[in-house]
Amino acid sequence: MTTTYLAGQYDVIVVGAGHAGVEAGLASARMGAETLVLTINLDAIAFMPCNPSVGGPAKGVVVREIDALGGEMGRNIDKTHIQMRMLNTGKGPAVRALRAQADKFDYQHEMKRTLENTEHLTVRQGMVERLIVVDGVCKGVITNTNAEYRAKSVVLTTGTYLRGKIIIGELSYQSGPNNMQASVELSNHLKELGFDIVRFKTGTPPRVNGKTIDYSKTEIQPGDDEPRAFSYETTTFITEQIPCWLTYTSPETHDIINSNLSRSPMYSGMIEGTGPRYCPSIEDKIVRFNDKPRHQLFLEPEGKNTEEVYVQGLSTSLPEEIQRKILMSIPGLEASKMMRPGYAIEYDAIVPTQLWPTLETKKIKGLFTAGQINGTSGYEEAAGQGIIGGINAACKALGKDPVILDRSQAYIGVLIDDLVTKGTNEPYRLLTSRAEYRLLLRHDNADLRLTEIGHNLGLISEERYQAFKNKKAIIAEEKARLASVMIKPTEEVQALLKERGAGELKESVTAEHFLKRPEIHYEDIAAMTPPEQPLSAEAAEQVEIQIKYDGYIAKQMLQVERMQRMESKKIPEDLDYFAINGLATEAKQKLSVVRPLSVGQASRVSGVNPSDISILLVYLEQGKLAKIAES
Amino acid sequence: MTTTYLAGQYDVIVVGAGHAGVEAGLASARMGAETLVLTINLDAIAFMPCNPSVGGPAKGVVVREIDALGGEMGRNIDKTHIQMRMLNTGKGPAVRALRAQADKFDYQHEMKRTLENTEHLTVRQGMVERLIVVDGVCKGVITNTNAEYRAKSVVLTTGTYLRGKIIIGELSYQSGPNNMQASVELSNHLKELGFDIVRFKTGTPPRVNGKTIDYSKTEIQPGDDEPRAFSYETTTFITEQIPCWLTYTSPETHDIINSNLSRSPMYSGMIEGTGPRYCPSIEDKIVRFNDKPRHQLFLEPEGKNTEEVYVQGLSTSLPEEIQRKILMSIPGLEASKMMRPGYAIEYDAIVPTQLWPTLETKKIKGLFTAGQINGTSGYEEAAGQGIIGGINAACKALGKDPVILDRSQAYIGVLIDDLVTKGTNEPYRLLTSRAEYRLLLRHDNADLRLTEIGHNLGLISEERYQAFKNKKAIIAEEKARLASVMIKPTEEVQALLKERGAGELKESVTAEHFLKRPEIHYEDIAAMTPPEQPLSAEAAEQVEIQIKYDGYIAKQMLQVERMQRMESKKIPEDLDYFAINGLATEAKQKLSVVRPLSVGQASRVSGVNPSDISILLVYLEQGKLAKIAES
Ligand SMILES: Cc1cc2nc3c(=O)[nH]c(=O)nc-3n(C[C@H](O)[C@H](O)[C@H](O)COP(=O)(O)OP(=O)(O)OC[C@H]3O[C@@H](n4cnc5c(N)ncnc54)[C@H](O)[C@@H]3O)c2cc1C
Ligand SMILES: Cc1cc2nc3c(=O)[nH]c(=O)nc-3n(C[C@H](O)[C@H](O)[C@H](O)COP(=O)(O)OP(=O)(O)OC[C@H]3O[C@@H](n4cnc5c(N)ncnc54)[C@H](O)[C@@H]3O)c2cc1C
Repeated sequence: MTTTYLAGQYDVIVVGAGHAGVEAGLASARMGAETLVLTINLDAIAFMPCNPSVGGPAKGVVVREIDALGGEMGRNIDKTHIQMRMLNTGKGPAVRALRAQADKFDYQHEMKRTLENTEHLTVRQGMVERLIVVDGVCKGVITNTNAEYRAKSVVLTTGTYLRGKIIIGELSYQSGPNNMQASVELSNHLKELGFDIVRFKTGTPPRVNGKTIDYSKTEIQPGDDEPRAFSYETTTFITEQIPCWLTYTSPETHDIINSNLSRSPMYSGMIEGTGPRYCPSIEDKIVRFNDKPRHQLFLEPEGKNTEEVYVQGLSTSLPEEIQRKILMSIPGLEASKMMRPGYAIEYDAIVPTQLWPTLETKKIKGLFTAGQINGTSGYEEAAGQGIIGGINAACKALGKDPVILDRSQAYIGVLIDDLVTKGTNEPYRLLTSRAEYRLLLRHDNADLRLTEIGHNLGLISEERYQAFKNKKAIIAEEKARLASVMIKPTEEVQALLKERGAGELKESVTAEHFLKRPEIHYEDIAAMTPPEQPLSAEAAEQVEIQIKYDGYIAKQMLQVERMQRMESKKIPEDLDYFAINGLATEAKQKLSVVRPLSVGQASRVSGVNPSDISILLVYLEQGKLAKIAES
Repeated sequence: MTTTYLAGQYDVIVVGAGHAGVEAGLASARMGAETLVLTINLDAIAFMPCNPSVGGPAKGVVVREIDALGGEMGRNIDKTHIQMRMLNTGKGPAVRALRAQADKFDYQHEMKRTLENTEHLTVRQGMVERLIVVDGVCKGVITNTNAEYRAKSVVLTTGTYLRGKIIIGELSYQSGPNNMQASVELSNHLKELGFDIVRFKTGTPPRVNGKTIDYSKTEIQPGDDEPRAFSYETTTFITEQIPCWLTYTSPETHDIINSNLSRSPMYSGMIEGTGPRYCPSIEDKIVRFNDKPRHQLFLEPEGKNTEEVYVQGLSTSLPEEIQRKILMSIPGLEASKMMRPGYAIEYDAIVPTQLWPTLETKKIKGLFTAGQINGTSGYEEAAGQGIIGGINAACKALGKDPVILDRSQAYIGVLIDDLVTKGTNEPYRLLTSRAEYRLLLRHDNADLRLTEIGHNLGLISEERYQAFKNKKAIIAEEKARLASVMIKPTEEVQALLKERGAGELKESVTAEHFLKRPEIHYEDIAAMTPPEQPLSAEAAEQVEIQIKYDGYIAKQMLQVERMQRMESKKIPEDLDYFAINGLATEAKQKLSVVRPLSVGQASRVSGVNPSDISILLVYLEQGKLAKIAES
């Protein structure tokens, strides 16, 4: 072995340029930290190894949150999508979600270009094999070309590459996603450093040539006519859209799979890794829900300039031979030509309870991890962690306070809190049901929740910040105005109510009150009593939602306050739980592992009961009293 | 090991979708043969692992030849270049050459799209590991997913993937180009089948971020203002061009390299493969031409939407550390940031004398090889072989006669004849000096040489063919007209001659005669005596070149005739050279290996002397006499 050479000195090094890595690198550099992003292959920056899409329930909100913090995912997909839809428009605002189909090649190229053109950011191809750790502090990384890069903090975002192994039926070989190089040495090194590692797996469906699909047997799924955007900064919209198509598995599909389970690596024992419950393979779905007569399959184009079509819902690691039979059993795909087989991939991940909520590892100071390496699955989950990891790595390097989002502030907060507090024994996916304050964590209000934080970090431009403050002021003014202006039971009002099938207005009410009626929308009010300046659609939406759901929101805010009271009761990092009399043994053990930073977080650790929390509260209180007595 | 499954039955299977594979697959499918193209990674179709450019001396002519045969390279680069230049415009027509900078991503995507949309063509991701060979005949291939594809002929175009190994300084690992999967099993299998394999190597320079280049220290190299195209079919031209830049190595560069030769894998003995003499690495250039004070380096953008810049001339496998020092020693690159290091790659190739001039292997019927696997280097060399390999594989499958281009018809003919007749002990690159009939193998007349062949094969559309015949007729007519119309020594004529610094016209001459004067161009004649319809620029160019160089061309045509007389003297494939009395032992051995198909080819086999040829001629003549006597 040759000695290393000093290849550079940075504030922050980000290892990986997947969805987590790019957000981490961009956030750090934009905060002014000299940042190096290293990736195994420069041609796969922000590569989408699976579904060519961004957003959807919960995930779409995360994209907006990233955007409100000054991240890139929203802006990038706004520039490179082939279709966009708002989901659940018929339902309440808490479950609405934007979802875009990406041109996956454009998405990569555009993201790469952004990285290349960002000040304080250097992006370089390189395979990291070791970390430089001195006295429990991470000082940099070493690559396979013997380059030694030093930094004040390091963020690992290695995705599914750590000891990656691809599996298709009886075939398996060491590989990262899409036949890229796996990252073997780094994984071994993390084990040497004492990290607890788990083995997870995920999978992807076959791709077929769109020219060979009989779309007449499928249902069209067009994009929305109304232009949509993820980013609050987007002002030009893509108008040409490409549809997706819906088809279903057939009874024959189910027969084929059932009679070939013995050749499935998932059931033959060949796959050791734990797969994602919420993105199951088709064989999994058919075994687990064997009474379901059919499963939805969406045919999603991979881009504008390719004929490859992604068969969403058909993730599989069955042998190629069976995959082809399965395709032939699906309406519309009978004569389709498979272009690439689906495959499963196994990889190493870190047990995320080894992390602080800042995403710094407890074991090694200055070392952060973000993305799939922390046991999650999904691009948005990765990107959401990436931006927080990047921010905190830069904060550490620049001597600033870290940023921790709590469960009431953002889905990203829920995600990270779940990971570091509860851990996960399977690839973790964000779901709306994971958030207790769903009505607060809406798609429409991500900017109101997080722009201030992004701006404080220097990640939101002054121009955008002014526009944001302006919007906030307009909303407040209009809400105040509607609280004072009266709607009278005039003939027109009664006529409108009748038309909407609503009860008569008995007496004059404030416009605010009137707007709470489910049949009435802000536009109705604005028509009756127009504001001086008409409101933007976004501001109008806020006024309506904030007034209409006021009661529910207030109720959740109360819960949040309760939660925050517990969250504000800090616990020292190095508290000796075994010294606390009365704590159950399980609680002692679990709390010693997780080392929660607040009583709130402690209460969410699995195996910790309310009685443990009471004891802990008393103990902390006494400690404080003791300290006061001492001083 | 599981048993294979029958995955499909085709006329032709092409293994590989690099520059050779795509031409082979497209030609075969367009000829109506059901064709399967298999490639390790669908995202790397027509991938350019090295210079982002197409064309140049000799190579540019090959692109035109491919186009005249109905191939894709010319059309594809016409759609996806960022700059185009005609080289050597000041020199004679034999050395003029078009060269384009490619947007390498667009180039790939466009080529992939063409494959996806071609009738009779299936393109699929798959790793071929074995051939199905029955009684010396290739019947198909088997992939690592146990898919068995049957076909009447198979073309291998595996490029630099066979047992590929990447080397950067002290680091080396198994890999195809650009960290893609290497093809290991197939290489072992070819050895098992008895093929002679050689180990070659090639290399690529580092890429730097264009934003970090100080272009003020370099010279701009813009594209031509005049729109240019490779394909005779192109009618719309790209107008926005991006410049390249020229810089040089410095004395410091040379010092750095000289003092680090001990760490060069080329000189330390780590690299076993033989490198390309005409694309040497920078360390090679500095060692071999150590009196040269500096070497040219062209800075070539890799595309429109990337900041990556290719440093042409700086191919290297020195350690990354040294590569970075080298960059810093180059004017304009002092502060440049390296994005990827250069590397060398070693790979297995087939000894090409194991092939017939059709590119079919002698050992296994129905098995063809084309491209870098045959020991060449370069995209155009690969594509030129690819189209011939594809054509002949399809001819074989469809029961048609094979196509062999001779050395007077095309650079492709020279290339293939050199390979199969002389072999090569280093990566073979096409150079104008390899062609003895350079004046015939021009850039401007590729269509006149080859369109007829392409059309006969069904690779040239009727529309294009009519336009071609039309052009030919116009040229002939105009030449006939100029041979009869007289230019008189009028005042204007003398004035023109004086202006051009040429001698006076003594007496009336035919326009043809007048055009032979070096100072006179076709436009001058057309101004004096206009044709009924003005000629297209291309037709006018032909008229001028054909008349002006008539003498030289006629002389070369005479040589060609002599050559063709020898070429028409056929030799049976299975001739027993050891039974021929008087042949030198070396000739016996060499001829038994190459098994030339004609006396012409025999005369080019290295180690075969004119006296051997005389003996061979007599022997063949006697054989014929003997047959006549027998009958
Ligand atoms: C086959 C497959 C199927 C999937 N299916 C789904 C699905 O159905 N649903 C879903 O939600 N998610 C799915 N995913 C997960 C989703 O792709 C990931 O969650 C997401 O890409 C993770 O982003 P990331 O940034 O954490 O990692 P990645 O996008 O994997 O990026 C990792 C980055 O780290 C780099 N890297 C790794 N090791 C090193 C090293 N040693 N040195 C330098 N660089 C290194 C890589 O080059 C890469 O740039 C799937 C992934 C795969 C591969
Ligand atoms: C690092 C590097 C530097 C180079 N430098 C130069 C240079 O300076 N000058 C120059 O003229 N040329 C250079 N070349 C060579 C040039 O790139 C090649 O000549 C050209 O790409 C060869 O084309 P090809 O079609 O023969 O092979 P490739 O373009 O290599 O394509 C091979 C194809 O075969 C497929 N394949 C391989 N094995 C299998 C299998 N078992 N099953 C299925 N598919 C398979 C691959 O997926 C790929 O699609 C360089 C190449 C490399 C890699």
